[in-house]
Amino acid sequence: MPIYNAPTRDLQFVLQDVLKLPETGLPGHDELDRDFTEAVLDAAGKLASEVLAPLNIVGDSQGCRLENGVVRTPEGFKAAFEAMKEGGWTALDCDPDYGGQGMPYVLGAATGEIFVAANIAFNMYQGLTHGAYSAIHAHGTDAQKQTYLPKMVSCDWTGTMNLTEPHCGTDLGLLRTKAEPQQDGSYLISGQKIFISAGDHDMAENIIHLVLAKAPGGGEGTKGISLFIVPKFLVNEDGTLGERNAVSVGNIEHKMGIHGNSTCVMNFDGAKGWLLGDLHKGMRAMFTMMNEARLGVATQGYSCAVAAYQNAAAYARERLQGRAATGAANPSGPADPLIVHPDIRRSLMDQKSFIEGARALALWGAHLIDRSHQGDAEADGLISLLTPVLKGFLTDKGFDSAVQAQQVFGGHGYIEEHGMSQFVRDARITMIYEGANGVQALDLVGRKLAADGGRHVMAFFEMIKTFCRQHADDAALAADFITPLKAASKDLQSAAMFFMERAARNPDDALSGSYDFMHLFGQVAIGYMWARMAVAARQALDAGTSDAAFFETKLTTGRYYMKRQLPMTATHLVRIQSGAEPVMALSAEAF
Amino acid sequence: MPIYNAPTRDLQFVLQDVLKLPETGLPGHDELDRDFTEAVLDAAGKLASEVLAPLNIVGDSQGCRLENGVVRTPEGFKAAFEAMKEGGWTALDCDPDYGGQGMPYVLGAATGEIFVAANIAFNMYQGLTHGAYSAIHAHGTDAQKQTYLPKMVSCDWTGTMNLTEPHCGTDLGLLRTKAEPQQDGSYLISGQKIFISAGDHDMAENIIHLVLAKAPGGGEGTKGISLFIVPKFLVNEDGTLGERNAVSVGNIEHKMGIHGNSTCVMNFDGAKGWLLGDLHKGMRAMFTMMNEARLGVATQGYSCAVAAYQNAAAYARERLQGRAATGAANPSGPADPLIVHPDIRRSLMDQKSFIEGARALALWGAHLIDRSHQGDAEADGLISLLTPVLKGFLTDKGFDSAVQAQQVFGGHGYIEEHGMSQFVRDARITMIYEGANGVQALDLVGRKLAADGGRHVMAFFEMIKTFCRQHADDAALAADFITPLKAASKDLQSAAMFFMERAARNPDDALSGSYDFMHLFGQVAIGYMWARMAVAARQALDAGTSDAAFFETKLTTGRYYMKRQLPMTATHLVRIQSGAEPVMALSAEAF
Repeated sequence: MPIYNAPTRDLQFVLQDVLKLPETGLPGHDELDRDFTEAVLDAAGKLASEVLAPLNIVGDSQGCRLENGVVRTPEGFKAAFEAMKEGGWTALDCDPDYGGQGMPYVLGAATGEIFVAANIAFNMYQGLTHGAYSAIHAHGTDAQKQTYLPKMVSCDWTGTMNLTEPHCGTDLGLLRTKAEPQQDGSYLISGQKIFISAGDHDMAENIIHLVLAKAPGGGEGTKGISLFIVPKFLVNEDGTLGERNAVSVGNIEHKMGIHGNSTCVMNFDGAKGWLLGDLHKGMRAMFTMMNEARLGVATQGYSCAVAAYQNAAAYARERLQGRAATGAANPSGPADPLIVHPDIRRSLMDQKSFIEGARALALWGAHLIDRSHQGDAEADGLISLLTPVLKGFLTDKGFDSAVQAQQVFGGHGYIEEHGMSQFVRDARITMIYEGANGVQALDLVGRKLAADGGRHVMAFFEMIKTFCRQHADDAALAADFITPLKAASKDLQSAAMFFMERAARNPDDALSGSYDFMHLFGQVAIGYMWARMAVAARQALDAGTSDAAFFETKLTTGRYYMKRQLPMTATHLVRIQSGAEPVMALSAEAF
Repeated sequence: MPIYNAPTRDLQFVLQDVLKLPETGLPGHDELDRDFTEAVLDAAGKLASEVLAPLNIVGDSQGCRLENGVVRTPEGFKAAFEAMKEGGWTALDCDPDYGGQGMPYVLGAATGEIFVAANIAFNMYQGLTHGAYSAIHAHGTDAQKQTYLPKMVSCDWTGTMNLTEPHCGTDLGLLRTKAEPQQDGSYLISGQKIFISAGDHDMAENIIHLVLAKAPGGGEGTKGISLFIVPKFLVNEDGTLGERNAVSVGNIEHKMGIHGNSTCVMNFDGAKGWLLGDLHKGMRAMFTMMNEARLGVATQGYSCAVAAYQNAAAYARERLQGRAATGAANPSGPADPLIVHPDIRRSLMDQKSFIEGARALALWGAHLIDRSHQGDAEADGLISLLTPVLKGFLTDKGFDSAVQAQQVFGGHGYIEEHGMSQFVRDARITMIYEGANGVQALDLVGRKLAADGGRHVMAFFEMIKTFCRQHADDAALAADFITPLKAASKDLQSAAMFFMERAARNPDDALSGSYDFMHLFGQVAIGYMWARMAVAARQALDAGTSDAAFFETKLTTGRYYMKRQLPMTATHLVRIQSGAEPVMALSAEAF
């Protein structure tokens, strides 16, 4: 049985020492001091370790079953969902006007890491609901908010996102689901949606589907799309549940992983739906949900790696195999533990330095969301730029990291018993859903980079430049952190410059390098986070912390990242600068 | 249903145009001309496409079942195994003295790619048998050879390798299986072995287990280990089958992939066994099997990627989604095919350029084996050096490549229906078995690099130097192929130099960089193969080939590799030169 222990100390370090929540913080959130966030994280960790993590492998092996048109979740899921609701976790960062606790998004992201690491498939039921909550909160009428939000905040009702159809995923302009207006202002929705996570299950009284469909009179392509609220059970005037709507589960998919989450084919056969937001402006409303979902998936990507890493580290300390090249480390035992071997260390350090950097980056991103919600335009621009980077890079690297953790187990990692295969199979989806990572790269290079005249990327460069200048004379940090960060940031700027010079003449010159650019950006962003963490660790040490070992470990782990991961930016730059020619030279038939 | 078409034309290019089998070739193998090898590859391709490939997804979904102590293979496997035997494929490169066809190993490797790509799990039953055949062929007595080899050449009897025990895989010195000598010269074998591929099944009359065990009087650790032949059914003097031996299946493992192959826990309860090779020298005999198995696994690694790539390329040509940034490519259709998008191209080019380079490298390696079998000491030294590189690098990159192919399918790649998940899950094992890739890196840096005073690596460098000198003035190749190959080779030499300077003082300085060195070496080796392929393509074009498009595509694909993959050597070198300090700095408790 895999282990999981919430890394409360590491999360606290980011929230309190790096982001300094109480100081820099969020107006109206004066409660976010060290004791408070620790209590929240501890409670989340307890639920995760005691209830969610033990169900992770159960969910994988049992999967979801479609029985007489209803999806049955794995044994224990329903009780765990009740525990999550009772703990108030589903309401944590929701609006108090609808029963939420009004905590900032960054705290939801921190507890989100914990819940995802313990059981990603389980946590999706709540995660999807939160996305649907946000869309209704942002675009719904007062009546819609009153009807749906309180029940969704409590997760008595859960939510879904219905975008994909058999013939289209990324290219939503092609979608065929139709919405026919009715006399009473409602619509009848007809069509088939696929890959609908949490599409049906037995843990909620009602399921609120948000469905993209084409209503008459819209333009071609994405311009004709609107978003509709389609509840599984219609809701009466008094809020009680009425008749079953004409939406049904066609099938559940057999997938590589996240077996504990029901991925459904949903059939809408003239189901009653209500417009959410403006007619023919469904994409805009959908993107409210999507941007949040993308950050959620970024968290999923690295959180799977956190769980996998904890098990790999434990195994490496316990499993006796071979002897250290520098002399027996465990002379009284039959062999030394795996962790004495440099290549096992290399793997664990790769994982550890990525995970901790990713955590800081994801939480910084969540903090930017909070600032953006409070009207900070700069933060809004920055997180809009960073969203595809976080989604694409953290999920790609999170998957790689889980694969490395599995590798530490050797053959024992390949059998299902130890759960390492599951971490890899589960992590794999994060590179695909909510916009496959190639689409994130396209979004970054094709849209976000040049948005508002390139202002946001310039602000990012300026922020790093200022940071480097501030710490240039800090002898303890300059060589190990500032110099490599500067070099990596320069690679990123050169790449952006290359795109600017070339893209006007040939957009393919930029698009051919988009994936490398997303990774280059991710490396620099994590490098920047490590430099900030190093500053925070140094400050704690200089202030005479009683926990010096913790902060020294941060510095050592950060140095590893700067020395052995960050130099990858140079290779990305070389690839980018090779332009479109090598990528586009072959005819389609030559493949 | 996934497609598979044997890439006969590409295999022929390597065998005939690059390796030039009939010319440079193998004494006693004058038959290896273009028509002959084409006929062999076509026949293998027909069996693969028509019989093996359709069973691939069946094997994955049904898996193997243990019923009353006997393993049942998936539906259709037995008939397919008969077809493979009838076609003589199991005997292809075996010794004619025992019913083999006496073809060279390189031809077995080429057909091996085809069979593995079509169905890796199925092909393992034969592959393991071949390994056991080789060990008995090299180390058996005449009587043992007469008893076992003809039946194993025909695969009427199959073979297994029994190394791993629950508490030890890599560190075989810890093994506990005991061999007790009997009056009649036989031994009684007792112990438990795990992860035994093809350990039991219903497709052969008998199964010949080769088992590592400790007989009395041996030294500590690996020195006390001997290798034993332990048949499932004892063999009578006249060659007929006698009573059932005391070896049984304890369980079959539930694995991430290769479900069609039975991975067994084998219990030896005083089973009758016979010494193979010298007493207490079992490791030596085992390595005959192991080195061959490692090359076989290298083939598996890139072959899974071949199959995955073919499906990704087909999907990218068919699936309509989005529009080309440079203007609609399919204006009369609802959208353009995926393949117009630069990032999809980037992914397909990454896959294609890796696969074709890997194929050349694997077949060159197989050709070196043939030359080594014929007494060529230089070839023997070279393949001994290259074996860990081929195993480690081709399986790591083969897995990555399969993941990229899966990614092209978006959400459709994550559901099991299209078979893309299976390619990834199957490929994953190749990084683990026959020595996890970290162990390959250790073998390379800790043993092979310095073997015979470093003579083999020097020979490799010299070979590349000579090649570069020969083609330095070839204007058509110099800039695109020779210059980048030189630069990459220089990185490899710098890394080897770093190890030499450091390893004596601190072995961890070399071992911390071992994994990067294995990849660096793999990159250079594939770069070298691409340069050789470019020369061959150029020659064909200069000679006025009627198939210019084929050779131009080779040059374009090779240029892509040199421009966008090979530069990775620089990052590997930087990591290596950072030495042991960042890798080893933390205490075990800090993880």
